[in-house]
Amino acid sequence: MVIVMNRHASEDEIMNVIEFVEALGARTHLSRGQEKIVIGVIGDKRNIQKEQIKVLPGVEDVVSILKPYKLVSREFKEQDTIVRLNGVEIGGEQPVVIAGPCSVESEKQIIETARLVKAHGAQLLRGGAFKPRTSPYSFQGLGEDGLKLLKKAKEETGLYIVTEVLDAMDVPMVAEYADILQIGARNMQNYKLLKAVGKIDKPVLLKRGLSATLTEFLLSAEYILSEGNPNVILCERGIRTFVEYSRNTLDLNIVPMIKRVSHLPILVDPSHGTGRRELVIPLSLAAIVSGADGLLIEVHPQPERSWSDADQTLSPDQFALLMRKLDSLVKWLRNEESVIYTN
Amino acid sequence: MVIVMNRHASEDEIMNVIEFVEALGARTHLSRGQEKIVIGVIGDKRNIQKEQIKVLPGVEDVVSILKPYKLVSREFKEQDTIVRLNGVEIGGEQPVVIAGPCSVESEKQIIETARLVKAHGAQLLRGGAFKPRTSPYSFQGLGEDGLKLLKKAKEETGLYIVTEVLDAMDVPMVAEYADILQIGARNMQNYKLLKAVGKIDKPVLLKRGLSATLTEFLLSAEYILSEGNPNVILCERGIRTFVEYSRNTLDLNIVPMIKRVSHLPILVDPSHGTGRRELVIPLSLAAIVSGADGLLIEVHPQPERSWSDADQTLSPDQFALLMRKLDSLVKWLRNEESVIYTN
Amino acid sequence: MVIVMNRHASEDEIMNVIEFVEALGARTHLSRGQEKIVIGVIGDKRNIQKEQIKVLPGVEDVVSILKPYKLVSREFKEQDTIVRLNGVEIGGEQPVVIAGPCSVESEKQIIETARLVKAHGAQLLRGGAFKPRTSPYSFQGLGEDGLKLLKKAKEETGLYIVTEVLDAMDVPMVAEYADILQIGARNMQNYKLLKAVGKIDKPVLLKRGLSATLTEFLLSAEYILSEGNPNVILCERGIRTFVEYSRNTLDLNIVPMIKRVSHLPILVDPSHGTGRRELVIPLSLAAIVSGADGLLIEVHPQPERSWSDADQTLSPDQFALLMRKLDSLVKWLRNEESVIYTN
Amino acid sequence: MVIVMNRHASEDEIMNVIEFVEALGARTHLSRGQEKIVIGVIGDKRNIQKEQIKVLPGVEDVVSILKPYKLVSREFKEQDTIVRLNGVEIGGEQPVVIAGPCSVESEKQIIETARLVKAHGAQLLRGGAFKPRTSPYSFQGLGEDGLKLLKKAKEETGLYIVTEVLDAMDVPMVAEYADILQIGARNMQNYKLLKAVGKIDKPVLLKRGLSATLTEFLLSAEYILSEGNPNVILCERGIRTFVEYSRNTLDLNIVPMIKRVSHLPILVDPSHGTGRRELVIPLSLAAIVSGADGLLIEVHPQPERSWSDADQTLSPDQFALLMRKLDSLVKWLRNEESVIYTN
Repeated sequence: MVIVMNRHASEDEIMNVIEFVEALGARTHLSRGQEKIVIGVIGDKRNIQKEQIKVLPGVEDVVSILKPYKLVSREFKEQDTIVRLNGVEIGGEQPVVIAGPCSVESEKQIIETARLVKAHGAQLLRGGAFKPRTSPYSFQGLGEDGLKLLKKAKEETGLYIVTEVLDAMDVPMVAEYADILQIGARNMQNYKLLKAVGKIDKPVLLKRGLSATLTEFLLSAEYILSEGNPNVILCERGIRTFVEYSRNTLDLNIVPMIKRVSHLPILVDPSHGTGRRELVIPLSLAAIVSGADGLLIEVHPQPERSWSDADQTLSPDQFALLMRKLDSLVKWLRNEESVIYTN
Repeated sequence: MVIVMNRHASEDEIMNVIEFVEALGARTHLSRGQEKIVIGVIGDKRNIQKEQIKVLPGVEDVVSILKPYKLVSREFKEQDTIVRLNGVEIGGEQPVVIAGPCSVESEKQIIETARLVKAHGAQLLRGGAFKPRTSPYSFQGLGEDGLKLLKKAKEETGLYIVTEVLDAMDVPMVAEYADILQIGARNMQNYKLLKAVGKIDKPVLLKRGLSATLTEFLLSAEYILSEGNPNVILCERGIRTFVEYSRNTLDLNIVPMIKRVSHLPILVDPSHGTGRRELVIPLSLAAIVSGADGLLIEVHPQPERSWSDADQTLSPDQFALLMRKLDSLVKWLRNEESVIYTN
Repeated sequence: MVIVMNRHASEDEIMNVIEFVEALGARTHLSRGQEKIVIGVIGDKRNIQKEQIKVLPGVEDVVSILKPYKLVSREFKEQDTIVRLNGVEIGGEQPVVIAGPCSVESEKQIIETARLVKAHGAQLLRGGAFKPRTSPYSFQGLGEDGLKLLKKAKEETGLYIVTEVLDAMDVPMVAEYADILQIGARNMQNYKLLKAVGKIDKPVLLKRGLSATLTEFLLSAEYILSEGNPNVILCERGIRTFVEYSRNTLDLNIVPMIKRVSHLPILVDPSHGTGRRELVIPLSLAAIVSGADGLLIEVHPQPERSWSDADQTLSPDQFALLMRKLDSLVKWLRNEESVIYTN
Repeated sequence: MVIVMNRHASEDEIMNVIEFVEALGARTHLSRGQEKIVIGVIGDKRNIQKEQIKVLPGVEDVVSILKPYKLVSREFKEQDTIVRLNGVEIGGEQPVVIAGPCSVESEKQIIETARLVKAHGAQLLRGGAFKPRTSPYSFQGLGEDGLKLLKKAKEETGLYIVTEVLDAMDVPMVAEYADILQIGARNMQNYKLLKAVGKIDKPVLLKRGLSATLTEFLLSAEYILSEGNPNVILCERGIRTFVEYSRNTLDLNIVPMIKRVSHLPILVDPSHGTGRRELVIPLSLAAIVSGADGLLIEVHPQPERSWSDADQTLSPDQFALLMRKLDSLVKWLRNEESVIYTN
């Protein structure tokens, strides 16, 4: 931590800051520049809050040197985390595809979709049973009945199930049906929920919040790891910007950046990240080439009959095309050495 | 709802759209312009989703005409909602001040702060017992013990208590101690929590999410009203932008805008809205002049000893100055006719 | 400047950084913390670029301590800059109002508007002769003919003229007619234009760019001052955010912030800052209370006949109301001590 | 255009709107819904401004149906525009690479860089002679001397020259040396400059502004085409968002979106779009896979000695790696059918 004093800071004010910091157990180093006086803080800073220092008389600014996250950082764990289900690896050599409808609507719809996405090569099935909807008048999901239909789809196809949990109280129930529990973008900072999924032994798919910085995203993952669950899968799904033509702005910069600072796998959701089905295929390929460990894709047998997110949902034909492209791209990628760590 | 067909749309595609819409129970009106063909949709549109129409062949765009919220709108209820506690009105003639520390830290701290804010004219005491913190390693609040201390502070001073509830499960417990339950910015779209506070008979203070549009903000309030609780108080607390010098960008435009489209009261939180104590007083006055029904202010007997948010917290002297200014400004305002509805 | 080395930096890499920095004429101080090694840079840093250091092997981050602007800073000049025209002070005790139409349309229109705004107490007349328009098919302004009409309006009413200059080449011509030259938001980083207005002896009104940070805004002012023109008036006019209901988000936080870090006067333009005429009056009052030195207001005798910006333009009645309110508010303010410097 | 009347609009107000619109030469169609009254406007709407209608009594909202741009739209011109230099096509089958230093610094530096980028397969050389710099104290470019050095580099290597022009006055001079004139992000709405490059017979590379919407970006291109120059190349270079870890957020969604709505070629600049050299390679590949017609890449023989943008500049080795990857990726792409128009 580096404390910058303002130009008019008196000697008393400087001494006061030094005493304050040292009383909290750290050492200091005073450096008098031509225009500014800077106090370096050395040693154990875990119990010193930047904000407390900032309000001391004479202080102009306080700059942190250490990252606030630990367990999720590559400095803490050098090797990539690979999340393993029986026969599927997320974060391993092969990108995975998690596909399915926005919402579970009926047995026919979810079974039909499951067969379809499996036929084209997806390894996991997604589908919402509990839906966070902006309006109270929109379809809110089938609840536990939806979970039961997902289980049937798994029995029929063998696909693993990824589904969202909205509330800490529902974690045990959802964990009974799901193979991976999804935390949605709106809940990225629902800390009670993060702690609850940190205590179970199933993997968690954590979506980035609409306006989450990289640091906030990783700190939310840190909540889960710090409760004991190491199997966190990150997911970029677009951020909120001023841009008018897409539902969100897909931030692919974050994919290679995460690979540098964290050991956790990262997926990309181009359905939400664009909000337009006609952009999903090119952005899916772009995500994989930028280093993503897989994709989340919305598919529906009849998008125009979909109860939610119809305009970002692929039709069966479009999904088939995406999977063909992806298969070919992955073959190309495997013949290449990695491009990520080209410092 | 207005459906815009693309230039190359065939007659079959146009007919298909009309049939699709009419099958859902609405009537249509076809209008052939020089460059575009437009289909107006008339009648009951509640069960027609814009997204479903957008994916029909030949459709270029779909434009909604009706607002998606109802109960919170001024069209639905012309008169201002006034939230009443015994002796305090929120949304009435007199702006209210809700003041106190970011977190409840100890009996001494909260009682001392309560006396202080009361002495200077605040009507309600704020203080967090359950704290949503970005990092799992930050102080998470005293929990129910904090609520008990708030109750003591109320017994000592008579101030009403405003405190945050983080989870649907905690609503009954928090409602036992609090006079107003606060939903924080990170939980603005925690719909289970919104529904839970919609079922109690205590007022709810709903803070705007960091990247919430006006419509999303009002739809979150709509969740609460649609469950039967009419006593919702909105609160602007700054939005996330590219700006580097303040923690958030306080969006005061929303104050008179809310007054136009909704009957609900709206407060402003300049502590979070600026993130810098030295900006809190001018922005507090600006909020009141723009039409806000009151303020949320962070105060601490010794800001530099505050366990959270120290750099946006007022000292006792600063709070005293704010309250003197505010008192004088409110006297000025009372002699003026309203400036809000100058269409 | 503080250089943070990464955890794996070798002794050779550390030495290399120290040599690189010292070869550029600065001294260094090495500090080995428990987790990070930090190199402080002391002395003359003007010719060291942060970016060059960042790419040296082993460097994780580089943090600047000094602000990049000088002449505009309050550290450089303690006292407020007051821009003086004969009989009008901008940045003095009394807030000023600059009012008029978006564009000069005709002699009748501009003279009528000038009389109107003068009658209600405005001290300066605004009106665009050169208009930067998003579409090439929109009205582009009357050009020099517009300037001549503004001159006539000045002769009729005695109001000073504020008008925009779009290009360095036009500066001498516009300076012949205008009392204050305006640099629009889109040109805030047109450095050739900034240098050109830096060389004339008339005041410059510099509007904040749509996505300009505080630092960028002040550095653009620094361009003008560094060419020799000290009479720069800043103007906040709203920034671009995700918000959907207003044309821009008016950032009033910047008003008291500018007062802290700079000696330059700052105005607020609530017409562009809201984009909705019904929000202009409350936000005008809020701007003044937050410490602004005056307002820029769009007024037109018949807004619905205005050739540009009609929906954010006040009618004569609305403007009269604003000026009555403002007059009363300023009387209140004068009886108050300042609230800005309450550190 | 569709005009939505508010709920309380009187018959007189409705009639007034209809008369206003018809007086401007258009026809209207009145539609009375259950909750709203809507007036459709049919016929020639070029001289009706949305803003004028919005301020008429009783009007709640006005919705445009037509896009505001024409010449740049795919509706106007179905076939892709290919910008041709002798032997190089931009927008054709093969992606192009424009590479070089941020600034021209010396003869040795630019010749060495030119040889280097040519050796690895770049077809065009970039390099700034006129530099728009945020601070007046930063290096501002060598000016015409820089242009002369670029010419020498062309003579040595045969590479075409792309360089920025900052001001309408400089267009003839820059056009003497450059093969393609670049309009930088800060000048995307410098309309005098856009008109000036619209009148020359050399291609123009137009970079997206930091906070430009898709519509604004295309309207700036429309300025150039409407002056007679059809050879406009668009370039995405990142937008300004709240994100903290990258200089800008690269918006790759725009690549396939532009391909849908416009016939113009679009390049991507991952150097500015990320601001971090270690992200440049993965995002370059992602850009090409999403459909971009080429890349703008900053390269320097010794990035740590670069006078500007050092931290986003590739070293010779990194550039060589990028070009190998790109070459391999393009071979893969050529064997694939296009994925862009999968409506």
